[in-house]
Amino acid sequence: MSESQNVNAVIPFRPVNPKTRLSGVMNPEEREAFAYAMLGDVVDMLLEAGCSPCILCTVPFEYRDIPSHVDSRDLNEALNAYLSHQDTPVLIFMSDLPLVTPDAVKRLLAVTADIGIVPGRGGGTNVLFIRNPQGYHVDYYGASFCDHVRIAEDAGLRYEVVDSFFMSTDIDEKEDLVETLIHRREGTRQFLKDNGITLSLKQGRVGIQRSPHE
Amino acid sequence: MSESQNVNAVIPFRPVNPKTRLSGVMNPEEREAFAYAMLGDVVDMLLEAGCSPCILCTVPFEYRDIPSHVDSRDLNEALNAYLSHQDTPVLIFMSDLPLVTPDAVKRLLAVTADIGIVPGRGGGTNVLFIRNPQGYHVDYYGASFCDHVRIAEDAGLRYEVVDSFFMSTDIDEKEDLVETLIHRREGTRQFLKDNGITLSLKQGRVGIQRSPHE
Repeated sequence: MSESQNVNAVIPFRPVNPKTRLSGVMNPEEREAFAYAMLGDVVDMLLEAGCSPCILCTVPFEYRDIPSHVDSRDLNEALNAYLSHQDTPVLIFMSDLPLVTPDAVKRLLAVTADIGIVPGRGGGTNVLFIRNPQGYHVDYYGASFCDHVRIAEDAGLRYEVVDSFFMSTDIDEKEDLVETLIHRREGTRQFLKDNGITLSLKQGRVGIQRSPHE
Repeated sequence: MSESQNVNAVIPFRPVNPKTRLSGVMNPEEREAFAYAMLGDVVDMLLEAGCSPCILCTVPFEYRDIPSHVDSRDLNEALNAYLSHQDTPVLIFMSDLPLVTPDAVKRLLAVTADIGIVPGRGGGTNVLFIRNPQGYHVDYYGASFCDHVRIAEDAGLRYEVVDSFFMSTDIDEKEDLVETLIHRREGTRQFLKDNGITLSLKQGRVGIQRSPHE
């Protein structure tokens, strides 16, 4: 597991008007604070797994003492430019994966293939491990999981799909908050509790409810 | 991994009017055939992982040469009666998990705790590994993941949450078919293809479409 030491983990992050699909349950300030809470959990878990996190942002951005990298281009262009300058293995880690555990990250870093892919639901890609960043490029949006497999195959690279519920669960919609309340014990969960968002059970279905506050 | 040899894996199965939430895309006969296709994938993967599958059904039922166990009571009563007669470790494996891989099952069987729990989305429990079946009982429905954790804690048992996207993904709704088309290569996926159900991409979102047939 010596691989896990000092692997650069780049986290694309959008600080302004994030998580718009949560607009039904959070106002813009809350969505921003929630995105920061998730980023905090992701950064903590990556550090605990022995990675060196770095935040990729379209605007200048400071978060704790984590280095940041500013690139105003779209996600794919910015990430591919970043990869082209790296000569050691890189993780690309989405910032809305607060369920991630150090064990899950270590399992990904233990992949012996050239590329490790953690699918998201709906054909997405939540995390990529890229052993030789200059020999690969990314193509997010749409069925990016299928695209990332194809890019690896076209380049003659071996890939491995890493099977992790915690890394496959990105928090985009109201229903996803259920997962955070059940499976996360750190900052993101605390943020929800502090804001009166708790689990509800109606007709055998688990959902969330928000108690009035202020 | 010698544990994995001959662990009894009980699969609750409902052959009549299954998967009602897929009614929008499949007629009753198709839903039945689809449920069998998923069961087939689950059985194959459990056999490949070295388990001995057994089907728990409310009505007499034959499937290949897999032993079945008939109990007309509700799921919890039937499973708890079953557990009370077992004196070796048991897996309780839901039948609608066609993404499962032998590796995922082996990872669950390698748990050293008394109980291994694979969460489903929304607070559910998709798979349970129970080392001593007579010292545990199940409580499905609702937030069963939380209930199964609590039952373990109340009994002084150690539990481990097993992190697997493939086992956490139960196929209940139309959107879930996307996962089957992307990640599964066996019977369930073939069933969908044979019935003209394929991936679609609209405005960057992956969904399914069904081509007219007959």
